[in-house]
Amino acid sequence: MAEWDALWVNVHLATMDEESGYGEIRDAAIAVKDGRIAWLGARAALPHRRAGTVHDGEGCWLTPGLIDCHTHIVHGGNRSAEFEARLSGASYEDIARQGGGILSTVRATRSASERDLFEQSLPRVHALLAEGVTTLEIKSGYGLDLDSEAKMLRVARRIGRELQVRVRTTFLGAHALPPEYAGRADDYIDMLCGHMLPALAAEGLVDAVDAFCERIGFTAAQTERVFGTARALGLPVKLHAEQLSDQGGAGLVARFGGLSADHLEYLGAEGIAAMAAAGTVAVLLPGAFYFLRETRQPPIQALRDAGVPIALATDCNPGTSPMTSLLLAMNMGCTLFRLTPAEALAGVTRNAARALGIFDDTGSLAVGKAADFALWRVDRPGELAYGLGACPSAGRVVLGRQPRPADRTR
Amino acid sequence: MAEWDALWVNVHLATMDEESGYGEIRDAAIAVKDGRIAWLGARAALPHRRAGTVHDGEGCWLTPGLIDCHTHIVHGGNRSAEFEARLSGASYEDIARQGGGILSTVRATRSASERDLFEQSLPRVHALLAEGVTTLEIKSGYGLDLDSEAKMLRVARRIGRELQVRVRTTFLGAHALPPEYAGRADDYIDMLCGHMLPALAAEGLVDAVDAFCERIGFTAAQTERVFGTARALGLPVKLHAEQLSDQGGAGLVARFGGLSADHLEYLGAEGIAAMAAAGTVAVLLPGAFYFLRETRQPPIQALRDAGVPIALATDCNPGTSPMTSLLLAMNMGCTLFRLTPAEALAGVTRNAARALGIFDDTGSLAVGKAADFALWRVDRPGELAYGLGACPSAGRVVLGRQPRPADRTR
Ligand SMILES: [Zn+2]
Ligand SMILES: [Zn+2]
Repeated sequence: MAEWDALWVNVHLATMDEESGYGEIRDAAIAVKDGRIAWLGARAALPHRRAGTVHDGEGCWLTPGLIDCHTHIVHGGNRSAEFEARLSGASYEDIARQGGGILSTVRATRSASERDLFEQSLPRVHALLAEGVTTLEIKSGYGLDLDSEAKMLRVARRIGRELQVRVRTTFLGAHALPPEYAGRADDYIDMLCGHMLPALAAEGLVDAVDAFCERIGFTAAQTERVFGTARALGLPVKLHAEQLSDQGGAGLVARFGGLSADHLEYLGAEGIAAMAAAGTVAVLLPGAFYFLRETRQPPIQALRDAGVPIALATDCNPGTSPMTSLLLAMNMGCTLFRLTPAEALAGVTRNAARALGIFDDTGSLAVGKAADFALWRVDRPGELAYGLGACPSAGRVVLGRQPRPADRTR
Repeated sequence: MAEWDALWVNVHLATMDEESGYGEIRDAAIAVKDGRIAWLGARAALPHRRAGTVHDGEGCWLTPGLIDCHTHIVHGGNRSAEFEARLSGASYEDIARQGGGILSTVRATRSASERDLFEQSLPRVHALLAEGVTTLEIKSGYGLDLDSEAKMLRVARRIGRELQVRVRTTFLGAHALPPEYAGRADDYIDMLCGHMLPALAAEGLVDAVDAFCERIGFTAAQTERVFGTARALGLPVKLHAEQLSDQGGAGLVARFGGLSADHLEYLGAEGIAAMAAAGTVAVLLPGAFYFLRETRQPPIQALRDAGVPIALATDCNPGTSPMTSLLLAMNMGCTLFRLTPAEALAGVTRNAARALGIFDDTGSLAVGKAADFALWRVDRPGELAYGLGACPSAGRVVLGRQPRPADRTR
């Protein structure tokens, strides 16, 4: 009988288990038992135990598996035609008149079969997995009716079952007003709170609840009703907040003990203080900032000063961030927002786990946590945020097992 | 005896053979004989001929193989530590004092063995090939002495021999002043023109000659001497011009009938007129613009109005554009410089071929040209510039043959 199921040697660890820096252990070893980390440390200190399999890490760096904590990766169609039309001179009005914008994604998502929606989402998920992602948040929010939201969330669950990646689902019914409720936003929120969310929660499809609180989204009062329903159902909340204006969303989500407030370009001092007090994570989404050519940056230094944990995510979505590279999000976090590479890596490991409420289980390398790793052919962990288009991944480990390399092209 | 060696059917073509747009042919076929395109057109018009191999394109789009026409992809080491130090608050002076900057790459390149330099460059080259690149320009310029420049150029030639990619070499001895010539730039140019360049050209290592004409590089007068030597040796020229200031470089390279002027953020009206008259291509490098957080854009509309062909490239280099994704360069060309997706694709096909002086041979799909293709799982060609981190490549064809899929991870 082996005492450990598997052992990795000839690796350097970035445990990400301290509140700053990488937690580097050079020439290390890490052991797994029953899918959990059973031991880690310098190889010189490795106790003598039998292991079922011994893996030679070939001098790679080993980090916690990456976590993309904010995606809309399940959706029908894409908006490349809209992207092209806009660059060719079409105005927002032209595009709306031609049926573009978020409602075109709602139409494509509603009309796709569940199987088609899964298959359309696969190449995007594979691109993330090929970069060492082991946990993925997936939001609903392009269905906007019970059946279509349920379809999106079932696809998300299926991705988690079939692709060897931990999936956390987020219900985002309050993403946009569906056309059949035009001019009746409060009626839609009534239906969402009274019917849609309770039904989806009862099916076990919802791990958290989100909303888009913005002048072009839902009001703070409507958002608060959604959060009240979530609380009654025992579900944690998070919020798309202060992306285009300061609506007080960060303070609101903090009042509900929210896991995260996301975007935050227009976040003010009150919101920061409320987040710090509540332990709400700031999830920054530089892909949308880049794609929309925004110029106002989130208040990084104030977040640091207040001790608010900072996470980074792709925001993968067809309209404002068609991004399927978490490494690119890390580079953009550094280049555009001036995060350090260590902050960027913390942003896709320990703080991303906190933004999903699963830091007890993953997001750093520590005994007892899930054995979710990423291996990298880099000289130093800071290299991960440096390249643009590099794919230094040398593989993933999920619950102690190595999935077959994800096929980026299918 | 087959009349064609190979035939692709069930593909849509973007021939890129017109001066605007994609040159779309839906439900098309394309035939190859002796590594050249022998026929292309709508499948309905396909003549009845035997073909050695018939490939089912599965509804993919087929474009000319992509061309990265400006790279420094062969170099020793990387500068991720410098990237990290700067984001952690180090000043340019701090970094220079610690031996950073371009001269650190010169040291790493000089000290690497030829074999090591090849192996360090391989993952970067593979990342490009995995995105459908079939032609790659590679500059010297981190050796700055005869032996080290020769070593870089031999590595470039070896990449072309071993990796099924067409490589065009560019001598960039006038990239930076080597430390042993500090304060003696004219002496270095004497040596370069009298000795280094003629020796490398005699070895057949040089397809074109480039220089860095800038306040922090070489003067226009020094650049002109380099170009004079190139002309005497029968070599075409190109130039790093107007990146940080207007030095009149575009006019200078145009006077020598140059293939391209590259960067061009500070290009003025005179330079544009000179380029238009000489047929000099404008090579835009949005990766460096992004990475350096520049705000002044190249004069895109004036270049369009003057009819100057616009190309796009990665500028892959360790200091200012550690980019190994030509698709990302296309997205940045659109997002940051407002090119259309059709202009971006032209920029990495026909106009990139012109920037290398090889448009007779590649850069568009036309009978008689090299059978260099890229196949894509996209719904429309405009989708290629839209994604951030997507890899929709379904394979490459080089001179009518399908290389094994490039391994992105090694
Ligand atoms: Zn979002
Ligand atoms: Zn360059």
